[in-house]
Amino acid sequence: MNHDFKKNLEQMADEVEKDLLRCFDKLFDAPDIIISSMKYSLFAGGKRIRPVLMRKTCELFGGTIEDVRALSCAIEMIHTYSLIHDDLPEMDNDDLRRGQPSNHKVYGNNIAVLAGDALLNYAVETAVSGIKHLPESKKSCGIQSLNVLMNASGVNGMIGGQVGDVLAENDDEMNAEKLKYIHSHKTGALLTAALLCGSIMAGADEKSLKLIRQYGESIGTAFQIVDDVLDVTSDTKTLGKPVHSDQEDHKTTMVSLYGLESAQEKVTEYYQAACRALDELSIDTEFYRQMADYICKRAY
Amino acid sequence: MNHDFKKNLEQMADEVEKDLLRCFDKLFDAPDIIISSMKYSLFAGGKRIRPVLMRKTCELFGGTIEDVRALSCAIEMIHTYSLIHDDLPEMDNDDLRRGQPSNHKVYGNNIAVLAGDALLNYAVETAVSGIKHLPESKKSCGIQSLNVLMNASGVNGMIGGQVGDVLAENDDEMNAEKLKYIHSHKTGALLTAALLCGSIMAGADEKSLKLIRQYGESIGTAFQIVDDVLDVTSDTKTLGKPVHSDQEDHKTTMVSLYGLESAQEKVTEYYQAACRALDELSIDTEFYRQMADYICKRAY
Repeated sequence: MNHDFKKNLEQMADEVEKDLLRCFDKLFDAPDIIISSMKYSLFAGGKRIRPVLMRKTCELFGGTIEDVRALSCAIEMIHTYSLIHDDLPEMDNDDLRRGQPSNHKVYGNNIAVLAGDALLNYAVETAVSGIKHLPESKKSCGIQSLNVLMNASGVNGMIGGQVGDVLAENDDEMNAEKLKYIHSHKTGALLTAALLCGSIMAGADEKSLKLIRQYGESIGTAFQIVDDVLDVTSDTKTLGKPVHSDQEDHKTTMVSLYGLESAQEKVTEYYQAACRALDELSIDTEFYRQMADYICKRAY
Repeated sequence: MNHDFKKNLEQMADEVEKDLLRCFDKLFDAPDIIISSMKYSLFAGGKRIRPVLMRKTCELFGGTIEDVRALSCAIEMIHTYSLIHDDLPEMDNDDLRRGQPSNHKVYGNNIAVLAGDALLNYAVETAVSGIKHLPESKKSCGIQSLNVLMNASGVNGMIGGQVGDVLAENDDEMNAEKLKYIHSHKTGALLTAALLCGSIMAGADEKSLKLIRQYGESIGTAFQIVDDVLDVTSDTKTLGKPVHSDQEDHKTTMVSLYGLESAQEKVTEYYQAACRALDELSIDTEFYRQMADYICKRAY
């Protein structure tokens, strides 16, 4: 991977980190354990891909980080809450996340449920508070962006994908179409929302929004297939979570459906589709190309 | 109870019901089971107290139902999601809700977690979409109201109260102060938010907001103590859920702390505090007095 790109990414992630910390730099009228549990997962070394994508996109389309500061913190909180709930015993039952015990292993299942709820709720509080402080002329863009974000994280997006994933576990008739629905919704929706929110806040035109959506959907689906592939090809230390869990859970994945090689070919196809969308964009797309590399070519 | 008041309440609840149904009168890009699970709990015969309070308050302060139509649907979805998660095995582990099997008994624990998440998320989608369609002059009130609602439902409000409730179960040092925190946050916060959102959307002044908040906090706390009392004095059929569950769960309640009689006296104290706030309000307060009666004097 391009060294400068990685450095740039880490720098932006650091800024996101500081802003997220600032979101918790206040007194809460709540028992300490819930704040501690929220922070445990939020500050567990995530790569901040979604908020970084949103901020960089807003800049590339002519806006500023300030325009999306709150909203980009919100999207990371939403992503984090979904991981906490995904790991619960009744869901994926994962004991490890990013190499550390999952939230419910540390705080108990009841607090983990509530910490997830609390992060989703606090994401909205953060975003709404951000809209309140936007200049008058940008408020309607702020409302539209929050609308896009919440659609992407709800039943028509991420939650729908997660439901599909849960149902897939005991589905004897799993097929490529169902799996594509899961991939595009569980991961693609929120990544795409990051791009859309950034460009909407910068006032991008409809054509650009359509292309950036195509790019987002492609890298989002690729991202999920890469996850499936890594579960087979990587090891627990590199991945930071148990490998071969899909096979143990009898989960249908792109690998179990098509085999490892075809799954890797699919990643390449989506990678190329992402690049085609970029070809038509009239802004500097170098960052997006590097990001596609970063997502599609990690660890193999 | 005043017959006209009850009829009026039912009529308003019917209108809320229709609006909630309309929120689901569309195609969702999601597996049927999650929509079905969300609707199962949302349309399980709730009394719609929070949305009715919001709508009536908006009207009493000079606004229209239209101003809070979406937001009042949102608050009911938030209330419903909290019940689904409260009933989960890792939380209160309640098999019955309003006389029917709890969400997780019908759909499984995993779908119940996701249905709760989805309702919270859809509440925000509904509210934000409502703000988008408000007249330009009312949009900032809409944003302020959503801010108030999300604060009330989050860690500084309802979720904080629920965490307190969870911690109380094995707390040998429970006392009146901790219990008051739980009561005021778990139930009071959202009831108060209903009143505040209604009055903010109608453009009420600061003094009125302060008084309506006092009223809301008082009836909210009373409401929760009444719940504790009914768990001792009522029966499963009347209550629609198992009685004596607090005692079986070794839960500290106002009844276990002070005895039945003192708990009932507390209800009267909060009822009177609610009425004192109303005395200072310059609008017609008859509805609020009847509502206080309705909440404090149900079933005993």
